[in-house]
Amino acid sequence: MQDASATPLAAPPHAALRPRVQAWFEALRDRICAEFEAIEAESGASARFVSTAWDRACDPGGSPGGGGVMSLMRGQVFEKVGVNVSTVAGELSESFRANIPGAAEDPRFWASGISLVAHMANPRVPAVHFNTRMLLTTRGWFGGGGDLTPMRLDAPEAVADAADFHAALRGACDRHDPGYYPRFKAWCDRYFYLPHRGEPRGAGGIFFDNLDSGDALRDFAFVRDVGEAFLAAYPAIVRRRCREPWTEAERTHQLLRRGRYVEFNLLYDRGTLFGLRTGGNVEAILMSMPPEVRW
Amino acid sequence: MQDASATPLAAPPHAALRPRVQAWFEALRDRICAEFEAIEAESGASARFVSTAWDRACDPGGSPGGGGVMSLMRGQVFEKVGVNVSTVAGELSESFRANIPGAAEDPRFWASGISLVAHMANPRVPAVHFNTRMLLTTRGWFGGGGDLTPMRLDAPEAVADAADFHAALRGACDRHDPGYYPRFKAWCDRYFYLPHRGEPRGAGGIFFDNLDSGDALRDFAFVRDVGEAFLAAYPAIVRRRCREPWTEAERTHQLLRRGRYVEFNLLYDRGTLFGLRTGGNVEAILMSMPPEVRW
Repeated sequence: MQDASATPLAAPPHAALRPRVQAWFEALRDRICAEFEAIEAESGASARFVSTAWDRACDPGGSPGGGGVMSLMRGQVFEKVGVNVSTVAGELSESFRANIPGAAEDPRFWASGISLVAHMANPRVPAVHFNTRMLLTTRGWFGGGGDLTPMRLDAPEAVADAADFHAALRGACDRHDPGYYPRFKAWCDRYFYLPHRGEPRGAGGIFFDNLDSGDALRDFAFVRDVGEAFLAAYPAIVRRRCREPWTEAERTHQLLRRGRYVEFNLLYDRGTLFGLRTGGNVEAILMSMPPEVRW
Repeated sequence: MQDASATPLAAPPHAALRPRVQAWFEALRDRICAEFEAIEAESGASARFVSTAWDRACDPGGSPGGGGVMSLMRGQVFEKVGVNVSTVAGELSESFRANIPGAAEDPRFWASGISLVAHMANPRVPAVHFNTRMLLTTRGWFGGGGDLTPMRLDAPEAVADAADFHAALRGACDRHDPGYYPRFKAWCDRYFYLPHRGEPRGAGGIFFDNLDSGDALRDFAFVRDVGEAFLAAYPAIVRRRCREPWTEAERTHQLLRRGRYVEFNLLYDRGTLFGLRTGGNVEAILMSMPPEVRW
């Protein structure tokens, strides 16, 4: 395995941030996992995250290196939650270079990120996705986002949850640039949409990519704030909903809504398709799949 | 709705077969549904197929016509089985013309077919897929196939089921051309494969497309024989397995294997992706999705 941190690259200002960025994603993962385990414990459950380290599989036409740790918990509140932190480097294969900023000149890349998907036992608790990442080619940028998938979009509780989730992300955005939230919210609405059904995946959130304001330190601070906003908002939503009673009809509806989640991820999600087509770690990529689904 | 049968086309010998081909697919559907309902009745269940007619949705850039009938049964033996017969006509949009034989010269097409997917309650009973179709552009051809998805590929019972299924299809092939079975079996093995997992979807069967021997009547007779072979083989497999006792572990394994089925259909299946991208009937296209799945 190649030492991911040693990959030489034409160095945008982001290059110096690599160790700090990676350390931040890992520390955030630890805090999120601890919080989720605490919620399980409050419910009298003893579920814990199980972590598995993996090395990046060989990408035909590239020289990959690095790997990651996937942490998975199957609990009573969190029916299935996966948190994946990975730091990888290598060369992008020919077919991907045209689509990745700065890769046409030099195929080498470095990427580090955290991604999380939680599917909840109680259909009153919304599912959630969150991720942030830094990428380096001859350019450097941040990307990420988070979106909430309540099972009943129009129920007052779901509307309240979505409002709180959006408010937290908006707060993180507004501290950095008043233009961020409207832009990143609209981006999220466009991205998490199922054209074959004419349906949004859920209640949205924010989505951003290719973020390079010219001040890498500032962008990194924004990405940290997005992580803090997620950590402040989502566990609070889980805590206030996870003891609500629910009906079999609600559970059935939840399992059908999870089908939409699967359809989105396998038909459209760029990260999923990119990972599967480039020989990524299948278990890590598909860790986001719901534990139980119906069609 | 445009009258699908009236679409004018440069007429390959297949054109005259349109009413007979459509009638065959509908009659085969009726016989298959009756047989599956009989199996339910033998198990003391009263499940019946529920049929829904649909018109083809508008394809941007085309002038679609026709429609189909989807027949769905949720029973005790057949946890979920869908049989879809459709006969559609219209114009292929620009982006598809290059990939469809004979469409570059004239974008009009006509297609009729039957497709079936059965997901079984008992994990000892293999799932199955079967379809046959005739297509017309300025050329005409047949396509189709069937494949079996036992849940435990290596169990002696699964090996025996797969052998019987293959033997029936081989019989149908051999009656027409000794080269068909080896060629169509290999095609099936290549097609129903999950590269991201390095796994076959199941125990295979046959798969063929663009079949035009120069004798449309002969090709239609082959397609009918494939249908007869399916009808002879699969219900017999269901009958001998559906009363076998099974364990919770086998059921869990079945639900995980169904996840592979979903992955294949949404990531790779050409019919599914073509349908979803051309504004096809979502419920009919995704009728093949398993009723319950785990990851």
